[in-house]
This record gives sequence, structure tokens and C-alpha cells, in this order.
Amino acid sequence: MRSFHVDSGAGIAGLAVREQDRPEPGPGEVLVAVRAVSLSFRELMILRGDYPLPVKPDVVPISDGAGEVVALGPGVRNVAEGDRVMGAVFPYWRDGRLEAAYLPQLGGSLDGMLTEYAVLPAEAAVPVPEHLSYAEAATLPCAAVTAWNALRDVRPGDTVLTLGSGGVSLFALQFARLLGARVIATTGSTAKVARLRALGADQVVDRGEQPDWHLRVRELTGGRGADRVVDVVGDLERSLRAVALDGEVAGVGFRAGERPAVDSALLLASGAAVRPVWLGSRAQFVAMSRAIEANQLRPVIDRVFDFADAVEAYRYYESGDPFGKVVVSIPAGEPSTWP
Amino acid sequence: MRSFHVDSGAGIAGLAVREQDRPEPGPGEVLVAVRAVSLSFRELMILRGDYPLPVKPDVVPISDGAGEVVALGPGVRNVAEGDRVMGAVFPYWRDGRLEAAYLPQLGGSLDGMLTEYAVLPAEAAVPVPEHLSYAEAATLPCAAVTAWNALRDVRPGDTVLTLGSGGVSLFALQFARLLGARVIATTGSTAKVARLRALGADQVVDRGEQPDWHLRVRELTGGRGADRVVDVVGDLERSLRAVALDGEVAGVGFRAGERPAVDSALLLASGAAVRPVWLGSRAQFVAMSRAIEANQLRPVIDRVFDFADAVEAYRYYESGDPFGKVVVSIPAGEPSTWP
Amino acid sequence: MRSFHVDSGAGIAGLAVREQDRPEPGPGEVLVAVRAVSLSFRELMILRGDYPLPVKPDVVPISDGAGEVVALGPGVRNVAEGDRVMGAVFPYWRDGRLEAAYLPQLGGSLDGMLTEYAVLPAEAAVPVPEHLSYAEAATLPCAAVTAWNALRDVRPGDTVLTLGSGGVSLFALQFARLLGARVIATTGSTAKVARLRALGADQVVDRGEQPDWHLRVRELTGGRGADRVVDVVGDLERSLRAVALDGEVAGVGFRAGERPAVDSALLLASGAAVRPVWLGSRAQFVAMSRAIEANQLRPVIDRVFDFADAVEAYRYYESGDPFGKVVVSIPAGEPSTWP
Amino acid sequence: MRSFHVDSGAGIAGLAVREQDRPEPGPGEVLVAVRAVSLSFRELMILRGDYPLPVKPDVVPISDGAGEVVALGPGVRNVAEGDRVMGAVFPYWRDGRLEAAYLPQLGGSLDGMLTEYAVLPAEAAVPVPEHLSYAEAATLPCAAVTAWNALRDVRPGDTVLTLGSGGVSLFALQFARLLGARVIATTGSTAKVARLRALGADQVVDRGEQPDWHLRVRELTGGRGADRVVDVVGDLERSLRAVALDGEVAGVGFRAGERPAVDSALLLASGAAVRPVWLGSRAQFVAMSRAIEANQLRPVIDRVFDFADAVEAYRYYESGDPFGKVVVSIPAGEPSTWP
Repeated sequence: MRSFHVDSGAGIAGLAVREQDRPEPGPGEVLVAVRAVSLSFRELMILRGDYPLPVKPDVVPISDGAGEVVALGPGVRNVAEGDRVMGAVFPYWRDGRLEAAYLPQLGGSLDGMLTEYAVLPAEAAVPVPEHLSYAEAATLPCAAVTAWNALRDVRPGDTVLTLGSGGVSLFALQFARLLGARVIATTGSTAKVARLRALGADQVVDRGEQPDWHLRVRELTGGRGADRVVDVVGDLERSLRAVALDGEVAGVGFRAGERPAVDSALLLASGAAVRPVWLGSRAQFVAMSRAIEANQLRPVIDRVFDFADAVEAYRYYESGDPFGKVVVSIPAGEPSTWP
Repeated sequence: MRSFHVDSGAGIAGLAVREQDRPEPGPGEVLVAVRAVSLSFRELMILRGDYPLPVKPDVVPISDGAGEVVALGPGVRNVAEGDRVMGAVFPYWRDGRLEAAYLPQLGGSLDGMLTEYAVLPAEAAVPVPEHLSYAEAATLPCAAVTAWNALRDVRPGDTVLTLGSGGVSLFALQFARLLGARVIATTGSTAKVARLRALGADQVVDRGEQPDWHLRVRELTGGRGADRVVDVVGDLERSLRAVALDGEVAGVGFRAGERPAVDSALLLASGAAVRPVWLGSRAQFVAMSRAIEANQLRPVIDRVFDFADAVEAYRYYESGDPFGKVVVSIPAGEPSTWP
Repeated sequence: MRSFHVDSGAGIAGLAVREQDRPEPGPGEVLVAVRAVSLSFRELMILRGDYPLPVKPDVVPISDGAGEVVALGPGVRNVAEGDRVMGAVFPYWRDGRLEAAYLPQLGGSLDGMLTEYAVLPAEAAVPVPEHLSYAEAATLPCAAVTAWNALRDVRPGDTVLTLGSGGVSLFALQFARLLGARVIATTGSTAKVARLRALGADQVVDRGEQPDWHLRVRELTGGRGADRVVDVVGDLERSLRAVALDGEVAGVGFRAGERPAVDSALLLASGAAVRPVWLGSRAQFVAMSRAIEANQLRPVIDRVFDFADAVEAYRYYESGDPFGKVVVSIPAGEPSTWP
Repeated sequence: MRSFHVDSGAGIAGLAVREQDRPEPGPGEVLVAVRAVSLSFRELMILRGDYPLPVKPDVVPISDGAGEVVALGPGVRNVAEGDRVMGAVFPYWRDGRLEAAYLPQLGGSLDGMLTEYAVLPAEAAVPVPEHLSYAEAATLPCAAVTAWNALRDVRPGDTVLTLGSGGVSLFALQFARLLGARVIATTGSTAKVARLRALGADQVVDRGEQPDWHLRVRELTGGRGADRVVDVVGDLERSLRAVALDGEVAGVGFRAGERPAVDSALLLASGAAVRPVWLGSRAQFVAMSRAIEANQLRPVIDRVFDFADAVEAYRYYESGDPFGKVVVSIPAGEPSTWP
């Protein structure tokens, strides 16, 4: 079988593919025939060397993937051979609050999913919603779980503000609608206005036309501001100007390198909380999958690459401005045609 | 102006209309030109004399109504003349838990809405969602607030079971969909199966075909049962057989006169809570209205009667098997044509 | 090593001790040198054959115990050798809602703790609060976790009603005080009034003097009733007469064989929920242990028996009227002196 | 009757006393014979002219007070003559989330309590816990409600960090203990270490000895950090270094004029939320009072001044370093002796 490997900071050029024997799952582990993975911003950070959590040397990269369970190690009871599963990025964060002990993560301090066969802790395996393909399922572990957690406690009738059209933002838009919330989406590209509307946004603010988009958000909410801002950019001051009194800015962690300082007087004066969102627990992943299945919700995929073109997928993800997720598909059974 | 009046237990025949002067709102009160009212089961109970809360003699009946604020008493600051408002059935239940002090209610120990002009405590006035007509708004205070409260804490992906096609059940169906839940609806009438589906039910169980409908509910949920049962019938034992472990049966109070005893061993063995729902607070009413407006949800009205035909509306409500709410409309401005 | 074994329905006389080899922990399992166990009502039900969940033949009985981890099976990462641990009764109920898949339990469908060495799923092992002895720790898994769950969402200033002086009731009394609640305790024994007060009860109702104790509870709460009733008896109707509007009766499951039926009109008219409590999740166990440690709370032990006198402990528990928990202590290291 | 008056920015020297007629309560208002008031940091901000919310000209200052209801305006039903009440600082914030419409406040855009007779909106009147004197009750509206809100969702066994010995911090210490939490308190004064311990602090960090007190907090929590930091200082970066992953820094608003900017990378990397606390709702005030009464908790008063010495009380509060609250007592009935 083949796996990609890389060191933190080695850049896209550092991605190397290696042929090796198919591993055996140990006690409490499962072997998954990976069928698709998807790219998140963390993957670029790892290649750039500025990811804030530990990365093992020669790691199999990419936290997000889905595949079929093909072998069980001893003592596994929660999954069976043949199950279609996704990997939970923090396998040990079962539920409740995040603790330091739960930080080991796929594609970081643990090997990830850019491989034909991955050995995962059994507790990392979360069932794929029935109506989703492997490519669709592979988009969920990082972006969708983050968006789900960011919308924690959103109530029907609340106004949710999303920024741009990356993976987290599009999932936040879709989940907010599913929760009965009203959605205001911003975009930097006039071409995307219609697509955001089609996905369910009640209003779209074109940042090209309205650079001070927080003012427009206030206007659209009768002066109140948005109840929840899902800030994937890290421009917290502007988010604080767009959020309602007693609302919340969900700060999606790890998105950008250099962030401006926040005026703490503004933070307190906004009357709104800033809550960093570090993905979510396995329990949140499972609850989200149940909601996705019950509502037949489908992730937005921008483009699918072949396993052999994984490096190109990274390049596209880095330089393009994808609308939704970028996926790498891994063919089942026979060896993939390799350049 | 004209008002209907009745005594508890006087029956439909006891409804009398009287001409009188338009009242003045006192301190903390508002005068509402009522434009529509709707009928709930409590209205029949009052006429039958088996309503469990106090009813004043010669009460203006009907708790549910909507209209326009036409005068403010001294000290009122939360509404303005011209506002379109509905009346909260328990005006003093602002938020949080129900207390005995909050039990005075419109159309019971306080005068109700079957009148051309009603004086209400200002805190009873809740703004009408913008897209709703007065007839639609008049359906919300009792049935919709009850359904909203009954679905408290329902999560996307949960399964909600509704029984029949009365007001509470149809609102529960609509709200459950709005909350991202899956809905199983039961009906005793094959003719209504398609209408329940059209309203959003994922599955409909025809009780004529399946008298042991709780078994069918188990089947449809892979054996788990429904996470939430909105029981408007009071057949708690059957509900307990249809509900999931750690789920909840929301018992909609005051529905039927004689109820069977519940086997308490079954209650404990179900592992599910039984929670009586007594309408809801003003805060829940406001939150619900916000959700209704954000989602442009429309109540289901079975039939609209004229003010002059109010007695006929009671008779229809009692003997018919309405699909949704029965409304009485009260013309604005000029005196209604009276038989 | 020696273990007790019994079949469901075999009675106390059916308890048999057997010598056998010390077992090896398999993948995902730990070997615990048991140092103490405690008795709960479920143990009597199992011997009487009326326990509602499956019991394996020749089961090692008793769900509640504490001891030292002496060996780890492959793949175990959450505990270490030498750790002092208690067993979670439902090892697979990690957090969130109870599901049917989480029902396997120690001393039921899984072997229990009345043995010198027990093999447990690693996820059953919960760390013992530092200030507690093994005897004290052994009282927590069933009674304390049940009481903790029964008090879920109790707020400072709420009034909690406890019935009698069994394990669950005394823990409920202690936890309610720790949560800042006011406690009314009932007892059938005048001799226990002072002890309940000493443990923190604000008021004690002597049921001998006041058989209609629910009336006294209403009186003591200015007519409101208790916000939470921890009903270990199953006399739900009386509990419903003692509970506040919008309060909750926590029905501690599995306590008594024959229960009276509940008037469902009374249930709805009380305005209070009835919630069956089936122990609690591992997460609740851990949170409770943290609270016990932070507050240096100590369980109430009625009497400690030697391992060799385990049968006598059962007899005492069955016929006595213990104030707190009955414990069996198992000596460490050397073989116990055996009759 | 006599009242103090002042303009925003006029300084302590600008406080003027005036004799005038006793006012009449209007519709929905009550007349309170004020018996005690207490000082909070907001009072100094108003005199300095840097209070962020509107202040009416010639305002009767001081938001916090308690007294006896001596007259009711028309339409008041929630209080009676003779009731001992405190004033809720935001009278219109009943429950739930803070809204812009709820911002009018006593001693700001509405007249306050430094007067012999105050007219309050009836909904501002909150009953005094029975065991408290007027002087004690007068300490609650601002500091205690803020502390109560800051500890929202704290669970037994959580670790709460308090800073210094001002009003909010001491209430936070007492409430945290009442909630079953562990408390670490910091102080800049060695003399206060013992007093903080006596009040219930589990550990006290002397900032004189340990200027990098956040490191000591980490040490005392085994590296985890505090679950909740009640930051009355506004040194958010240090609080973020002392807080646990997924914990919360409750930022008590309006405390200090100039605040340092916060590194937003640190904010996100802490994994902890920052939540500004703007006092609390009337419902929180009522729930807190109930908890105070059930637990017979007593506020800490540093010193009590006579009404005639109110100006001196301001001076003492500004320059001293009080341990607890500074109170001004107003004699009942007869005219106070006036300098």
C-alpha cells in the first residue's frame, strides 16, 4: 500500500509517497481502507511549520478522511468490518469539555489519512451518514465539526453571520439554516453571491461593494448585530462590531498566522463573548452526523482530485479560492494508477 | 362595542353577546381592537365546567386572539398605538419556571378575547410576526406556545412523534421540522395522511391500519422509539411504549377529562421522563414568534368564521375533526353585521 | 483467588464462594485487586430474581467496588498500574444520553466485584477521590451516582426532598447541601431525626408523627412544595403532592417490586415532571468524584463486614434498616482468613 | 426629604444635597424609603465622566440601595407597602439575554438611591432576603449580581479564580464556595491573606510574593489552570494564561479606564472564552437572593457611613483599599442630623 509522508515545515514539495506493507491493527484499533480525504487549513499550516500543536516526524498527513473498516484489532466492540466510517480528528475527546489529554490528533501527533490503509484508534471511527458518498463524508471531520461546535446553542430565529466560502463557513451556513436561524453571509467575490443565496443565505454582503461590512450587518439586523459570528478570519475587532449585545463570536482557531491585537475595551464594551472553537468532541461529531442524515444535508465539494494527484490538490487548495471542500479520492481494491 | 360572555359550565348555549361601552385601559394596561380569535380545547372545557383553573363569572371567553393596540393606559412603555399584537395567555408568566402567582389567564380568571375591544395587561401584548395576518396570529397563543414548549431541548436529528391533527400537533410537526428533527405523525384518518406528509412529516402512521401504532413507531426508529412524544391525548402508557430510553413524553395538560391510570413500573422502566406542559412563558412566546418570522412559517387554519357566527364556530370545533385551527374573524372599524 | 458466584433468583443461600486462578486482563481490560464492595438494592433484586435487566448465569455479584489496578491488558491508556479505582456500573455509558447499547453492567450481564480480583473494561475504571478510603470509595458507583444524576440541574436555593436514610437518600442530602440547596428529609424513625440534621438536613419530617408528610412539606415550603423530590420508594402520587409546580420527581428506578398505579390526571395537574433515574454516565461519575474531592465530602457507612462474612452482610442489609451504606472489605495481599 | 445630585464628570466635589418634596409614585412605580446604599466602581466612573452608558444631568447618584416600600403607584401588583426591597440596577432587564432596550439604569439614565425617598419602576423592586439588614441588602444589586452572573454554569468541583478583595471578588469567592467550587484568590496585600482564607478561599496567592501569579495558579491546579477567572482588573492576557482549556474568563465590565490590547492569537490559543459580564437580569437577582437566603450567606461590609457623611464615604471608597463593600446608612423616620 502507499502512504504520503511529510515533516512539519517541509512545504508541499516535502510530500513524499512511500510503498509499504499494510499495517495490522493493534488492541483497540481498526484498519480502515481509506476512500477519500479532504483538505483543511491546518494541512497548510503543518506544511508551513506554523501549526500550534505537536506534529510527529514523517507523519502521514491530513486529518480528514473516510473509508471502510477492513480489520479489527483485539478488544474492539464499537465497530464492525465493512462499516463505513470517518475519523474523528481528536480521537480521545469523547464528550464534554476539551482537556489537554485529548489533544493527540490524526495527521498531527498521530498518523493521518493520506494513505490507502490507516490504522485508527477504534474510538476515532464515526459512522458515515447513509446518504453520503465517501468523498462527501471525508469533508466532515474538521470543517463540519468546527462549524457545528461554533453554532452551539444557536436558537431558531437567531441571526448567524458567516464570512466567506471556505469549508467551515459553508457548513455554518447550512447548519444555521437547519437550526432555524437566519443567515447573513459575506463574500469577497461578486460571483459567489448567488451561490451563497442558493445554499440558503437570507442575505449576502458583498465585501467588495461594502468594505465596512459590519455596518451593513448592523443595518440588516435593525441595529442589533448578529447573534453569532463564525469568525474564520480572525479579524476579531470587526466581528465585535458586527455582533449583538450578549451575542457570541465563535473564533475558529488556527486559521491565520498573524492576527491583530484586540482592543480589550472594545471586547468588554461589545457585551459579547469571544469563544475559541477547537473542532469538537466525538459526541458532537455523532450528533451532527445524525442531524445531517435526518435532514439529508449534503456537503459542498469544490473539486475532487485523484490520489495520484494529491500534491496538486494541495496546490489548488492553497492558491485557489475554493467554494467548499477540496477532496482527494482513493480508489478501492486495486492499486491506483500512479504517475 | 360587542362582547361575548359566559359562565363556566353554561355550555355553548350559554354564550351571550352584549353591547357595552368601549372600556378605558387603566395603568399598565392596553386597549386592543381584536381582529381575530382562535378556539382551543380549553374553551370547550370551560363551557363544560371541567376546566381545572379558576374561571370568573360572566367571563369574556377565549384566551387566544390578536388585534391592534388602539389606546395605552398610563405607565405603559413596551408597546405603542398601532402595534399588531397577540395576547399571552398567562400574562404574568414572563420567563423561567411557572409559579402559582403566574396562573391568572386570559379567558379564565381574566377576561378574554371574544370581544371587539379587549383591555389587556401591557405585558400580555406580544408583537405579531410581520408576515402573518391577524387570523394566523390568533392561532398562536395557546396551541403554538404549547407545542414550542413541548419541543424544548429537541435537537436536530431527534425523532419527534405527534398524535393527530389538532392545533398543538400540527404546530409540533412544523416546529420539529424547523428544529431539524425527524417527524413521525399518527392520524386516525386515512384522508389526512397526505396532508400530514405535505406539512413535513417524514412518516405518517395510520392508526386505522395500525391500532398498535407504538409498535410501528418502534419499527420506524430501529427499535429505539421516538426521542420526544407530544402526547395531546393522555394515553400515557402507549406513549411510554413508543418513547426512547432517556427520551421525554411531553404531556399536554388539560386535554381530556378521564384519563387512565399509569403503571408506575412502566413509567420507571421506560427510562423516559413525563413532563406536563402548561402552555409557556411570555419569553417562550417571543422566541417562538421570532423563529416563526425568521422561517416564514405559516399556521394551518382549518376554517374561519365571522364574529357574528362565533357560536357556530364553537359547534364546528366541538363536533368536527378540524385539521389545524378554527378561527373567528372580527371586522375592523365599522360595526359588524349582526344577525 | 476467591470469588463469589450466584444465579439470578437463587437467594442469599445461593451465594457460593469458589477458588480459582487469577484472571488475565485482555485487550482493553484491567485487572483490579478489589479492596471493598458495597451493597445496593439491586443486589437483593438479583438474588430474588426480579431484576429487570439481564443477569448472566453464575455471575460474580455486586456492581459496586473499589480497588487497585494491578495489571493492564494490551491497548489500555487511561489508567496505570497502582491507580486506585472504582468501577462504573455501566462501563459503556460514557456520557450524554443512555442508549440500549450501554446497558451491560457490572454484577449483572458482566461479572461484578465480590471477588479478590476483577477484570474490568478499562473504561469502567474511575479514579478514587484522594481523601477517600477504599471502603468509602466502594459506596459511590451505584448510590452516589444515582443521587448525583437525580439532582441534575438543581440550583442554589432550590428545595430538595429526600425520603429515608438509604444510600441514595443520604448522598442526595449531602449533594443537595453541596449544591447550595435547602434539604427537607423524611424518616420513619424518630431516632434518625438528629442524625439527618447532623448530616445537613434543614428540616426533618418524622413520618411516624406525620403520616401525611407531603402536607408538612407543603407547609415548610410556604405552599410551593419541593423543587426536586428524590423518590426512592416509588410512591409517586405522594411525591407528586409534595412537589412544586414545574418541579421534578426523580424516580430512582428498580427500587420496589410492586408499585401502585399513578393517576395520570394528578401527574399532569402537578405540573411537575417525573424523570426515572437509571444510575448515570461515566462522565457524571467523574464530575461527581471531582466535586466530592473538592469539598472533602465523606460517604456515610453504616457497617463494614469482612470478605469472609459477605453472606452475613447481605442478611444484615436485607433485614436491617441501615443508615447509609453497608460495605464488605477485602484484605489486600495475603489470603483472607476464611471460615 | 433630602437627595444628593450630581452631573457626570463633576467629581466628588460636585455632589450637592437638596431638600425637596417627597415625590409621588406614578403608574407602575413605587416609592421607597431608602435605608442604605452601597458604593461601586461605577459611581467613581460617573463622577470622573468616563462611564460608558448615558447619565442624566443632575442625576440622583448610586445604583445600589435598599429600603422599605412606603407607597404604590396605580397598577402595581408585584409588591406591597411595607415590603423590604432592593433596586435592580437595570429595572427593565427581566430575564434572558441583555437587549439595548434594557439599558436604562438606576443612578445613570434613571435617578438612583442616594436620597431619602426614591421612586422606582415597580419591576426594579426585589425582595430582601429575610436574614439581611438593609445595610447588607444594599451591597447586592451591583457587585453580588455581577459575581453571580460571572459564575454562571460553574459546577461543583470547578476551580474559580478571584482577583483582590473588592465587592465583586468577595461575592464571587462566597458564591463559588456555595456552588461547591474550589477557590483560588489573589491579593496584593499580605494582611488580607488570612481574611480571604477565613472567607472560604482554598488557596490564596500573594501577588507581592508572586508577581507572576498566573504561574502559581497553574501550579496549584496541576497545570490545568482555573476553570473560571473572574477578572475585575481587565488584565485579560494574564487571565488567559491562568485559565484552563475550554474554561472561561468572565470580564467584569467597566472596571478600569485604560486597558491593554489583547493578543488575539493568545486568546484563541487559550481555548477559553472571554465573556463580558454586565451585571445581570432581575431573574438572576431573584435567584441569587433565594440562594443567599437558603444558605444564610452574609455580605462582607468594610465600613458604614452616615447619610450626612456620604461625601466622605465616596472619598474613602476612592482612596482606601476596602475589604468588601462601603455602605451609607440612611436613618428611618425622622430627619437625619445634618452637618
